[in-house]
Amino acid sequence: MITIGNELLIGKILNTNMQWLTYAITELCGNVVRVTTVGDYVDDIASALQEAFDRKADFIITCGGLGPTFDDKTLEALSKAVNAPLELDATTLRLMKKSCRFRHNSDDERYELTPSRLKMARLPHGGKPLYNPVGSASGVHLKYSGTKIVALPGVPMEMKTIFKEQVDPIIRDLVGDIFRTEGSVKVTGIRESNVAPLIDEVMNEIQNVYIKSHPKRRPELWLELHFSSVSDNKEIAEANVKKAMRCLSKLIINHGGKVEPII
Amino acid sequence: MITIGNELLIGKILNTNMQWLTYAITELCGNVVRVTTVGDYVDDIASALQEAFDRKADFIITCGGLGPTFDDKTLEALSKAVNAPLELDATTLRLMKKSCRFRHNSDDERYELTPSRLKMARLPHGGKPLYNPVGSASGVHLKYSGTKIVALPGVPMEMKTIFKEQVDPIIRDLVGDIFRTEGSVKVTGIRESNVAPLIDEVMNEIQNVYIKSHPKRRPELWLELHFSSVSDNKEIAEANVKKAMRCLSKLIINHGGKVEPII
Repeated sequence: MITIGNELLIGKILNTNMQWLTYAITELCGNVVRVTTVGDYVDDIASALQEAFDRKADFIITCGGLGPTFDDKTLEALSKAVNAPLELDATTLRLMKKSCRFRHNSDDERYELTPSRLKMARLPHGGKPLYNPVGSASGVHLKYSGTKIVALPGVPMEMKTIFKEQVDPIIRDLVGDIFRTEGSVKVTGIRESNVAPLIDEVMNEIQNVYIKSHPKRRPELWLELHFSSVSDNKEIAEANVKKAMRCLSKLIINHGGKVEPII
Repeated sequence: MITIGNELLIGKILNTNMQWLTYAITELCGNVVRVTTVGDYVDDIASALQEAFDRKADFIITCGGLGPTFDDKTLEALSKAVNAPLELDATTLRLMKKSCRFRHNSDDERYELTPSRLKMARLPHGGKPLYNPVGSASGVHLKYSGTKIVALPGVPMEMKTIFKEQVDPIIRDLVGDIFRTEGSVKVTGIRESNVAPLIDEVMNEIQNVYIKSHPKRRPELWLELHFSSVSDNKEIAEANVKKAMRCLSKLIINHGGKVEPII
């Protein structure tokens, strides 16, 4: 994933798009390996794309930089990274016009081709627009050697709408029949450093379960243990998580800790 | 900057550390060029470090993965990336003991060298600990060819405390006498796409000013314009921002928009 915007690099805003997208992709059983955040510069965005190609990523999702302003550079960076010229795309223009009429509830046939609208309709050769019913900037879907690329606008409502309607099926198709199960328990009365070797023991014993401890401070000090498992068989994934929870809880209780379900 | 943790890649938590750190570094006039988020894997963390070396970063700050549990891999990854073996560091052990006595307000001279404590005290050769008065995992300060590296724990209170007390002066020293000024205005009554060419015009005319527009939806649609300028002369940076604000406001009003200060 590549999130784009100077405002992210100066701490002006929280990267809520990153959390929303990583959560949504994980729910679809996708495995997000890396998130890179860069500023509004063609070279920086293009390098981040190029590095993901070099790592042979199956899927790249970018977020931000598709709008009308001078510092929206994602289409230019995509063009550079996949070495395909920007071309005015008639379908994109049509979709932008449709969205404009839909949003402003107007039958006005005049749709002025301002420079900023033309900019948003110039896609890298081979790119297909992803219709944005809630804003003017279309998303883009593109393939480059073995990698699928989806570019989404950074305005949260637009990003989420395009993702739910058009990116969700692309990811489902890519992931295939994979299931992910997770669960958490609350642990008190034992230190994280004493739980660590018990987690190791359970993860060694039960394959395909990932357990992570998160120390929490509110209302008082406690430990969340988060279990997850991924499998092409839903029952196996669920059984793995249940078994790991049971085994680890038992070990923790034997070591003087207390385990409670998190509802 | 490298933020580390599987919980960030599955959308379990918001990357608040990224916002806090990028904001703090920007306040010190540092320029954050890229943030990479990777999971709790030695190879992924080491690759992200290696790529930052290849880009000749002046400064790398990592956050997360310094704790006692099996999935805390940052020290191992640092060791791999800078090609320096992990060695038990006596100073680190002493600081860990000091922190433990400080936090638990105890004069107990027994300080058990559990495996998890020994793990946190094994630094890459040449690394120096950064004292953590509010937790057990020390930070690490390290140099590798032209790059300074600081590794901080991911627990927010620990990260912030070490940063304020010990990383702040390192960054001040690296940045030198540079000043950063910023300001914002609220714009209504004109579309972002019509403001875009006006921003271009002002940025072309006034050097060293960066202007970015942020569309907002609450309580109603409006546009925040954010101005910033960096200079080795504080008065020049301030004058640049003031001049850009004045020029752009005038242009916007001439185009039918309304400009208000943001207090």
